[in-house]
Amino acid sequence: MRRVAEQLGWRPSTAARALSGEGAATVGFVLARPAHTLGVDSFFLQLVSGIQEVLAERHLGLLFQVAENVADECAVYRRWWAEHRVDGVLVVDPRADDPRPDLLDELGLPAVVIGGAPDERHPGLSTVWADDAGAMASVVDELTALGHRRIVHIAGLPGLAHTQRRIRTLRAEAERRGLAEVQSVTTDYSDSEAAAVTRRVLQGATPPTALVYDNDVMAVAGVAAASELGVSVPADLSVVAWEDSALCRIVKPWLSALSRDSVEFGSTAARELLALLDGGPARTVQVPVPRLIERDSTGPVRAG
Amino acid sequence: MRRVAEQLGWRPSTAARALSGEGAATVGFVLARPAHTLGVDSFFLQLVSGIQEVLAERHLGLLFQVAENVADECAVYRRWWAEHRVDGVLVVDPRADDPRPDLLDELGLPAVVIGGAPDERHPGLSTVWADDAGAMASVVDELTALGHRRIVHIAGLPGLAHTQRRIRTLRAEAERRGLAEVQSVTTDYSDSEAAAVTRRVLQGATPPTALVYDNDVMAVAGVAAASELGVSVPADLSVVAWEDSALCRIVKPWLSALSRDSVEFGSTAARELLALLDGGPARTVQVPVPRLIERDSTGPVRAG
Repeated sequence: MRRVAEQLGWRPSTAARALSGEGAATVGFVLARPAHTLGVDSFFLQLVSGIQEVLAERHLGLLFQVAENVADECAVYRRWWAEHRVDGVLVVDPRADDPRPDLLDELGLPAVVIGGAPDERHPGLSTVWADDAGAMASVVDELTALGHRRIVHIAGLPGLAHTQRRIRTLRAEAERRGLAEVQSVTTDYSDSEAAAVTRRVLQGATPPTALVYDNDVMAVAGVAAASELGVSVPADLSVVAWEDSALCRIVKPWLSALSRDSVEFGSTAARELLALLDGGPARTVQVPVPRLIERDSTGPVRAG
Repeated sequence: MRRVAEQLGWRPSTAARALSGEGAATVGFVLARPAHTLGVDSFFLQLVSGIQEVLAERHLGLLFQVAENVADECAVYRRWWAEHRVDGVLVVDPRADDPRPDLLDELGLPAVVIGGAPDERHPGLSTVWADDAGAMASVVDELTALGHRRIVHIAGLPGLAHTQRRIRTLRAEAERRGLAEVQSVTTDYSDSEAAAVTRRVLQGATPPTALVYDNDVMAVAGVAAASELGVSVPADLSVVAWEDSALCRIVKPWLSALSRDSVEFGSTAARELLALLDGGPARTVQVPVPRLIERDSTGPVRAG
């Protein structure tokens, strides 16, 4: 029967199950990051807030689990799906060599990948993503317009797809403009690694005149580390935070930041998953490009 | 059969269900707060991190749901328990007139209340709590030792039990010491309300010389608001944050803060719930009193 149905292209409607009360009425969310790093990531909190807003309207729960690594994350998906614990999953932190899309395809587990670039090899998965490359290019545009030629990008986790998109874009933009002293340094997203890298590059022979941080907490920590070295922002050093949060506006100077609506990003992803559960087709949805909001931490490069 | 069992004092072991694979292998967590306020609360993130660390060891999931209010939260518990979705729940934000303990008793849903004071009327519930009163008293001790007599406590949500414990303690300590100009002002925990209240009290006829904020984000916002008014910390104003996070150490001046291990708080609560599920008795566990860490935002009151 199942086989015949599949040959006819028929698929059981997970949505019908969920809505009739036969489904799990639950969406899964696994985070393969050390649990102690969650407490400082405002992006994830905002994302989860946005997801919740949409799920709450439909009385759907969010089943949340922290996994040690991606292999464990895959095991969680297998178990949840086998045990009918979830109707679908939201997948974060897409990686360069990512085993998850193949697995989700194999299981037939409805899924939305958050932050991934469009993936033609997995037409069954929905994707919600932002154009990190375009955003990075806009930052380089603005910094070079201010005269900066020595730029360091203090990036997040090296294995993540969006980290790699940002690094590749920075390199390409630098080459295109003939900027030899532009580089990315990856970190674990923590304030402590950001401060350490900031100190190291500012104490180098030809210190950068602009720093781009992959999150708000790192940018705030970086400004504090620079200040301890007597480096003044923005007079000696321009700083851009990737992620605009309350943090960027409660420190002095206020931080110039790439603003994206992470709550809305989460809501969009949740809505796409509900659309899949309602029997709709998988889609690739692009959210608006993060926009550079110039505040007080960016300025013209110091003459000489 | 069920009735006979109950008369014999027998109760089905939820733990046995969970461990044999018959249970939901899931712990529930409902937050009755507006979803958009989650993104700035480092306490909750750390708490959830600690919970996850313990649940992950046992391969238990955390079913998370945001509710509009406590009545909706109660409806979620009823539904989850009826549908065998959870083996137990972690309950946060205990309130003054709280309908949840009675409901949890009635359902027989294993539960740990996080942050509540010991509750003799509900011996079936476990409680994990911190001595907010003792912590507030230690802050008043320290501030009065520095000569402060005009203190404003910029508190969190007025309906929460721990907010009320802090407010009551502050009032009692002020009366005991004959301090007439000590008060608490409640807020929604946001940086914007904290900044507004800070501006208002600093522009009053007899401005306070010390401010105590109920979270880290409010304290950072308050220092920025004071600085805009030309009020210097700690020369003109001492500031204490209730909750020590990376934030307190990445702004200038570094904030004096009440430090509690919120990750461990979450782990303790999760372990207590697992103990209940394993058939253990309900217990009241007190975590260490938050400890005042003096950094650069507190100092002697300015002479005159």
